[in-house]
Amino acid sequence: MVNKLKRFLIGRPMKSTELEDEKLGKLKALAVLSSDALSSVAYGTEQILLVLMAAGFAAVWYSLPISLAVLGLLTVLILSYRQTIYAYPTGGGAYIVAKDNLGVPTGLVAGGSLLVDYILTVAVSSSAGTDAITSAFPVLHDYRVLIALVMIVFLTIMNLRGITESASLLAVPVYLFVVAIFVLIISGLIKYAAGGIHAAAPEIGTTVSNISLFLLLKAFSSGCSALTGVEAVSNAIPNFRQPAERNAAMTLMMMGLILGSMFIGISVLAYLFGIAPDPKETVVSQIAESTFGRSVLYYAIQGITALILFLAANTAYSAFPLLAFMLAKDKFMPHMFKVRGDRLGFSNGIIFLGVMSMLLVIAFHGDTENLIPLYAVGVFIPFTLSQLGMMVRWVRLRPPGWAVKFAINTIGMLTTLTITLIFIFTKFTQIWMVFVFLPVVIYLFNRIHRHYRNAAEELRINIKSDKPCIKGSTIVVPVAGITRVVLNSISYAKSLTDNVLAVYVGFDDEEIRKMEERWEEWNPGIRLIVLRSRYRSVMKPLIKFIETVEWKTAETDHITILIPQFITKHWWENLLHNQTSLLIRAYLYNQKDVVIATVPFHLNR
Amino acid sequence: MVNKLKRFLIGRPMKSTELEDEKLGKLKALAVLSSDALSSVAYGTEQILLVLMAAGFAAVWYSLPISLAVLGLLTVLILSYRQTIYAYPTGGGAYIVAKDNLGVPTGLVAGGSLLVDYILTVAVSSSAGTDAITSAFPVLHDYRVLIALVMIVFLTIMNLRGITESASLLAVPVYLFVVAIFVLIISGLIKYAAGGIHAAAPEIGTTVSNISLFLLLKAFSSGCSALTGVEAVSNAIPNFRQPAERNAAMTLMMMGLILGSMFIGISVLAYLFGIAPDPKETVVSQIAESTFGRSVLYYAIQGITALILFLAANTAYSAFPLLAFMLAKDKFMPHMFKVRGDRLGFSNGIIFLGVMSMLLVIAFHGDTENLIPLYAVGVFIPFTLSQLGMMVRWVRLRPPGWAVKFAINTIGMLTTLTITLIFIFTKFTQIWMVFVFLPVVIYLFNRIHRHYRNAAEELRINIKSDKPCIKGSTIVVPVAGITRVVLNSISYAKSLTDNVLAVYVGFDDEEIRKMEERWEEWNPGIRLIVLRSRYRSVMKPLIKFIETVEWKTAETDHITILIPQFITKHWWENLLHNQTSLLIRAYLYNQKDVVIATVPFHLNR
Repeated sequence: MVNKLKRFLIGRPMKSTELEDEKLGKLKALAVLSSDALSSVAYGTEQILLVLMAAGFAAVWYSLPISLAVLGLLTVLILSYRQTIYAYPTGGGAYIVAKDNLGVPTGLVAGGSLLVDYILTVAVSSSAGTDAITSAFPVLHDYRVLIALVMIVFLTIMNLRGITESASLLAVPVYLFVVAIFVLIISGLIKYAAGGIHAAAPEIGTTVSNISLFLLLKAFSSGCSALTGVEAVSNAIPNFRQPAERNAAMTLMMMGLILGSMFIGISVLAYLFGIAPDPKETVVSQIAESTFGRSVLYYAIQGITALILFLAANTAYSAFPLLAFMLAKDKFMPHMFKVRGDRLGFSNGIIFLGVMSMLLVIAFHGDTENLIPLYAVGVFIPFTLSQLGMMVRWVRLRPPGWAVKFAINTIGMLTTLTITLIFIFTKFTQIWMVFVFLPVVIYLFNRIHRHYRNAAEELRINIKSDKPCIKGSTIVVPVAGITRVVLNSISYAKSLTDNVLAVYVGFDDEEIRKMEERWEEWNPGIRLIVLRSRYRSVMKPLIKFIETVEWKTAETDHITILIPQFITKHWWENLLHNQTSLLIRAYLYNQKDVVIATVPFHLNR
Repeated sequence: MVNKLKRFLIGRPMKSTELEDEKLGKLKALAVLSSDALSSVAYGTEQILLVLMAAGFAAVWYSLPISLAVLGLLTVLILSYRQTIYAYPTGGGAYIVAKDNLGVPTGLVAGGSLLVDYILTVAVSSSAGTDAITSAFPVLHDYRVLIALVMIVFLTIMNLRGITESASLLAVPVYLFVVAIFVLIISGLIKYAAGGIHAAAPEIGTTVSNISLFLLLKAFSSGCSALTGVEAVSNAIPNFRQPAERNAAMTLMMMGLILGSMFIGISVLAYLFGIAPDPKETVVSQIAESTFGRSVLYYAIQGITALILFLAANTAYSAFPLLAFMLAKDKFMPHMFKVRGDRLGFSNGIIFLGVMSMLLVIAFHGDTENLIPLYAVGVFIPFTLSQLGMMVRWVRLRPPGWAVKFAINTIGMLTTLTITLIFIFTKFTQIWMVFVFLPVVIYLFNRIHRHYRNAAEELRINIKSDKPCIKGSTIVVPVAGITRVVLNSISYAKSLTDNVLAVYVGFDDEEIRKMEERWEEWNPGIRLIVLRSRYRSVMKPLIKFIETVEWKTAETDHITILIPQFITKHWWENLLHNQTSLLIRAYLYNQKDVVIATVPFHLNR
């Protein structure tokens, strides 16, 4: 039943050899890996305008130079990540680059930061998508959390079905969104050129009395939240079809081009149309309305925007499991993240991401807007570290033409560092949590690593000198009566060794006498040792007895505790038996170095 | 830690030989076993008056003849239970008497009815005690459920400490209550005689127009709820000190005398003082106030009454575990109810009673008043059956003077039967549940019995012919690599037999080649069988392999699956390992008749 449901949801299991078919071509990869970055177009310009409005409507013209600055930063980031792709063709990402060039601790900061960030991405974008839906259908407002959770479950299942399958399905809305935004930009520009817009945008260069550098920096850093997700391509090179690095680099460039034009296009239109941010209507919605009126085209753009906000989460589903895999390979995360599931994806990573982000959505009741700055700073920390790592690499290796590459990464590093600092200074109240969870995550990484290292050390043998050695064998069989299970157990024990001891724990004389008599009558050829328990505990005398046996024979013999066990047909019937054998087993398992064997007898009725 | 807490709460464990010291003398037994019956004085008269008020205040004089009728019934019950005590000196009770004389199914009806009833008793009386407290301190009203639960936990722990200890402590308030009620009755009568009461009670014999037989019967049956708990003594004979039956009979007579005088005393005073039931003040409270005013004495009586209502639950704590023990001995309830705990009480029964009644209190949010009729009918069904059983017994055995005994039980049976029928007819809406849960409980008894019978049959061997037989042995060791655990496991296996097979499940060629090379280099003298898993599952190929081994050798050999297992030091570290061995173990345990052995290796760090 469970198996059938699983097959229905995620499909038939796939052979390991099918892995190559699961890789992505450029077009699908662009859709999957850029949905996060592209979706920021839906709110990037708005974030800038919101900050500027603090200085009055006259200040909105500053959005143009700020957008150009964001565009500049995007160019730097794209160029420097392109270098990373060629430098680390097996899948770079901030974790690998930082670890490789700046040492493991720095790598862990970058990796931990990104891991948490991907969880935030899923929570934030599913909540944002839900908000878009509930704006359109206010009656659904009470089911906000539920809608977001359903969406996360859907994405999780899609990704468990495998990379290609989810990419094929999810590429459609991404490309629809790109087309829709370009149509909007072009139509908007034509309408403006035709004089169809009568807006009073402040002229560029208007002096605004109460504008401050702080405000401008804050607006800039808010605009930079549109750049989250740019790193996804360089993390996901292993998912690309051969030649992987070339395909990845091409995909990255295409993404940069599309993102840049859409972002600047929306910013320009917003300025030309004289749009001020409105808590009740998004900037994109206002532009679309001014351009098309409340026509079908308007509603189509709104619907597709909602969809893309949801799908932004999908980028995290590609990147998180790969990053978790790399950390697990380096023994900083549990082994389970290394296992490929039935559909060849790292299913544990996918499920973990889904569960954690659902918990976040539930914990914040679906109001995850406050997490946006947190998630931006969580991206810019690894951005900075990976650029710094690349700088060190160029200085270290000095390949031909390294100076230019070094320069690009230096500019990138300085810019992202600046933005990180701006975030910290301007939005500290919203991002302080990063300084709590990052140390926690890094502590966990180290604890896990230490455990694996210690366990490996304790388990390691020298295959030259450590060979199996043969010892004698003593088998202790606790018996509660003379039954078929006991018969089977004793047959088994006698087949293995002559040193078999049957032990019986009795509570009163009458009971003990009867058992001894029956045993003698049965005469299985094994001595019965009777222990009297004055306090009616079976465990205590038995364990004391086992300790005596250990003390006497552990040097020469392997000691086995052979537990006769009958297994009931229905689970509830277990309540009808005292399960002493399970208690004995659990105690010995945790406390003693003796072998525990169970001779099962399955009841048929 | 857990152990220390347990010792603190319930005391040191006791030897089985100390059982005799745990038995009860007459005075302590009276306190423990009569608290349920005596506490009904606090509400019995009120129940009668409440029904009569439906016909107007003029009808309250009927409470006197009705109280006399209840007193008559009490006398009959006491006499007939006295006969039961002497007939079944090892502990009678309705279950044994009915089973012995009317057959097992009837016994189960009586037993099941009583078991459920004891749970209701604890729930109802702890809620009633809580109501008394919250009447005095209304601020506690919101914590009603919590107070009742705390009280139940307290009683459970006291009873887990042992019979004598709880009896010594709990006897004080019971005797205080008896003294208080007698003081109240005598003072009240003196005050009335001195003419200190100016009340207008309707004269005895006043004609009441709208009184009906139905109403009178309803009032009578309500008054009979004061008789619940009378059976407790005859159930609990095993808890009495020697000579048990004489002591039990004496205790029963004393209880009847005290209960009868208190009940009739309160009824008479209520009539003389012209008291009408008031939802805001109990009848006893009104009598006490009229007698003493709001003096210290008044508050003392109120406090002691609250206490006795709580302690009524304690009778159930004596009777339930004993009854459960008897049912478990006859294999109608799980074995665990036969086990004497550290303090020689049947602790599983005590805990079960506590938990079930707590669940009831929670389910009813502490409003358990509606359960009172349910619990009265749950007592009168076994009352009737046990009397009927005694009648059959006298006819069957015909001891000297059996005719009188037969007559007493016949009168008892007819009266209790009548009351049962009155309950069913007058309060069907409140007691219909009994016809749901009783069949369910009896069905469970029978399911349990059938399981034990079947299991015993399957496990039984003929000790003349069924002897241990010796077979060969094949040991299969699943290995995941070459580690210390694997070394230990192979040493162990080689010590037992030469037929040892190591099995390795690999996912890809590279992995498999490496393992084969290392194995050859190590050369432990055992063949390594390599299975390739194209779908990356360890379980499936391994189980298929085990099935092949079974098919080849099960005739001649015992097959053992020897699982190398390292045990982490901290529980959370288990999350870092894939626990494949646990999965293998669980599957084999439930599905296959092979021996499963674990060679443990405890990690120290």
